[in-house]
Amino acid sequence: MTQSKASPTFRAIDVIRKKRDGVELSRVEIEGLISAYTKGEIPDYQVSAWLMAVVLKGMTRPETAALTDAMLHSGDVLDLSSLPLKKVDKHSTGGVGDKTSLVLAPLAAAAGVAVPMISGRGLGHTGGTLDKLEAIPGFNVNLPVAEFRRVLEICGCAMIGQTAEIAPADRKLYALRDVTGTVESPYLICASIMSKKLAEGIDALVLDVKTGSGAFMKSEKDAVFLAELMVETGVRMGKRVVALITDMDQPLGNMIGNALEVVEVVEVLRGGGPEDLRELCLETAGWMLHLGGVSKTVAEGKQQSAKLISSGKALEKFRQLVELQGGDAGVIDDSKRLPQAKHTLQVSSVRTGFLASLQCEQIGTACVILGGGRERKEDLVDPAVGIVLHKKVGDQVAAGEPIATVYYNAEAQAARARQLIEASCAIEDTAPSGKRPLIHRVIDTSAEKN
Amino acid sequence: MTQSKASPTFRAIDVIRKKRDGVELSRVEIEGLISAYTKGEIPDYQVSAWLMAVVLKGMTRPETAALTDAMLHSGDVLDLSSLPLKKVDKHSTGGVGDKTSLVLAPLAAAAGVAVPMISGRGLGHTGGTLDKLEAIPGFNVNLPVAEFRRVLEICGCAMIGQTAEIAPADRKLYALRDVTGTVESPYLICASIMSKKLAEGIDALVLDVKTGSGAFMKSEKDAVFLAELMVETGVRMGKRVVALITDMDQPLGNMIGNALEVVEVVEVLRGGGPEDLRELCLETAGWMLHLGGVSKTVAEGKQQSAKLISSGKALEKFRQLVELQGGDAGVIDDSKRLPQAKHTLQVSSVRTGFLASLQCEQIGTACVILGGGRERKEDLVDPAVGIVLHKKVGDQVAAGEPIATVYYNAEAQAARARQLIEASCAIEDTAPSGKRPLIHRVIDTSAEKN
Repeated sequence: MTQSKASPTFRAIDVIRKKRDGVELSRVEIEGLISAYTKGEIPDYQVSAWLMAVVLKGMTRPETAALTDAMLHSGDVLDLSSLPLKKVDKHSTGGVGDKTSLVLAPLAAAAGVAVPMISGRGLGHTGGTLDKLEAIPGFNVNLPVAEFRRVLEICGCAMIGQTAEIAPADRKLYALRDVTGTVESPYLICASIMSKKLAEGIDALVLDVKTGSGAFMKSEKDAVFLAELMVETGVRMGKRVVALITDMDQPLGNMIGNALEVVEVVEVLRGGGPEDLRELCLETAGWMLHLGGVSKTVAEGKQQSAKLISSGKALEKFRQLVELQGGDAGVIDDSKRLPQAKHTLQVSSVRTGFLASLQCEQIGTACVILGGGRERKEDLVDPAVGIVLHKKVGDQVAAGEPIATVYYNAEAQAARARQLIEASCAIEDTAPSGKRPLIHRVIDTSAEKN
Repeated sequence: MTQSKASPTFRAIDVIRKKRDGVELSRVEIEGLISAYTKGEIPDYQVSAWLMAVVLKGMTRPETAALTDAMLHSGDVLDLSSLPLKKVDKHSTGGVGDKTSLVLAPLAAAAGVAVPMISGRGLGHTGGTLDKLEAIPGFNVNLPVAEFRRVLEICGCAMIGQTAEIAPADRKLYALRDVTGTVESPYLICASIMSKKLAEGIDALVLDVKTGSGAFMKSEKDAVFLAELMVETGVRMGKRVVALITDMDQPLGNMIGNALEVVEVVEVLRGGGPEDLRELCLETAGWMLHLGGVSKTVAEGKQQSAKLISSGKALEKFRQLVELQGGDAGVIDDSKRLPQAKHTLQVSSVRTGFLASLQCEQIGTACVILGGGRERKEDLVDPAVGIVLHKKVGDQVAAGEPIATVYYNAEAQAARARQLIEASCAIEDTAPSGKRPLIHRVIDTSAEKN
């Protein structure tokens, strides 16, 4: 109840109180808070109180854009203007079996769009692009910025992890959010994603916002809210941003686990692979090519992408990327060069019927239990383990027929994973009525304004 | 979005998330949080996020009682059971010119009720009992517990400040709330007040919850809400608790400032003093005597109190208290022995009319500016300075007639205080219609249950 003397310097307490009371913060106040926090001038305990007030009171669109901008400018923003190509990236909010980034970076690069991709690791039940890349022996995701730029210039794409120079405010804020119950806010999620992606110096961004039982946004309403927020925030910051709301009610593709997913990536780049994965890759690539100015329409971009796959050019680009980043490109022709699990076991159907649903988060958790993901940030990942699905939702299945194969290195983990997979499958007598679409909708409000 | 491995130990993050999501916390969870925080096992940044969630999501009555109980048992609880008298205390939520504690402790003690009073210092625009007592030369408010008990046994009352042993969780939490915008929550205010008061080992408590322009709870609705919360919390913890909602739309009595307030206390104990102050003291004393079992009704307690004043017994008890705590009891007979301000100035009315209102918080702030209160916790208080009001709301006033006298030691401060006092007085042509009652209502839900 006390008020200390007015001071000409920034006062965190005033910003906390305003947000607590539902008053809109100014750009100057938000910048002041983020800048002071990044410099260590205000303590964690003030910022965590502010974060909780944001979680419970929300943010306006201008506040969200100001927060994103402040976080973006807390560190280096890559200047890729010397590169003559348009720079386009994609970002997924995370799911199970989502390996599209490994297909899309080389595919878009093969089409003449530069893809400077900075990705993350798997957390919780979801996989991460860096972990998948590291399943390729020798692949280095920790390139210095100069080397990242060199690979990008030669190859048209480059894939690395976050560096200390990019959005340091996000790194600090995320660590605090993780331990203070303040992760689950669309405004904070938006600012975290967009600040990192815009620090890549891109012209446009395609967002893949997942919804369903394996997504962080279980409901389509929440997914659309976050997607609209991110699109509008990007547009306010002068970027072309489009979001696809896509299905994550069952795993994407058939393979889950880092090395297994690389196998499936190669399948897609060879023109094969599961239909859902191939379709989502082509649709997203269509948007990337369109926003990157190499196709007039999304449909045209999709057709170009399909041609780059059938001609083998996309796969060659992937090979070049792997080589440039120090990886063993031999894995493309011989998947046995990827880490191999010692054992496999089958999960079979106990009855005849139709696979009515696959609890997607449980499948992701089963992979984490096998060692394919992290329960804590500091955990090491086993690249060899994972799950191959033989059935997807809607498929017929006979009693005793395998639904999934588990690739494992430890019996106890395999037993727990099997239980989880069994519990996640619902077999019913009749085929499920209707089918969830793969792409629920496209949010492209920036089109009108650009 | 990550979840660390389940652990058998207390997990602060789970408690934060539950409160954030509006789920009621169990007694075990609240005790776990407070106990771990007091021991330094969980960091400030987790507790501040939890505090903000409490501010914005509120607490149920069982949660509030559990929090109070956990804070109460974070330190020592005095055991005064060897004292044959009933132990009754009073607590005010703070106001301007509220010196009732200095009247009530000796008055109730003179009636045979023990008053083991642990008080606070002035903060913000409000005064504090300890600062007033320390205006008496030599008065020691920092007695060790054994000495506090000795004074109480001899005199029937004793008045000290909070010790390190009493409710250490409150001390730590209050310091954190002060810098994280989490002071303003009735649940947290209730737990803070009640945990400290119940640590005194009392049987009953009379709460004086202020409302009006000089109170922390400006609206009666907020004051009643807090009062009901405190009464019910006390009752849940097996105590008899009553709350008076009293007026703080103008200062209580005529004198504001530590030494000046001691003068007015002596006036009341001599049977004089301003009507509002005298009336509130008698009403509160009536309740203390009734809850302390020495009068059958409140009205009877009031009559007894008036008699103890007219007989001089209450004043003698005050003299004994001052002497026992090392103070110069000579101030009672000669107010010149109290610290004296070097200068005075008059604030006069610019026009003829009626005093329609006195912005009470501004009057309190004027006293702080003079040096009579603290702008920061570490500030020293000047006991000599203050304000004497010659007019109260509703009084007629002629142009040029003094409204107040300012007692000061520094010209610049006096000039600022004069401005504030002038701005706080509204003079109108007609008398204000109606009069705010002194006692707005009494909240006594515990009566039915005890």
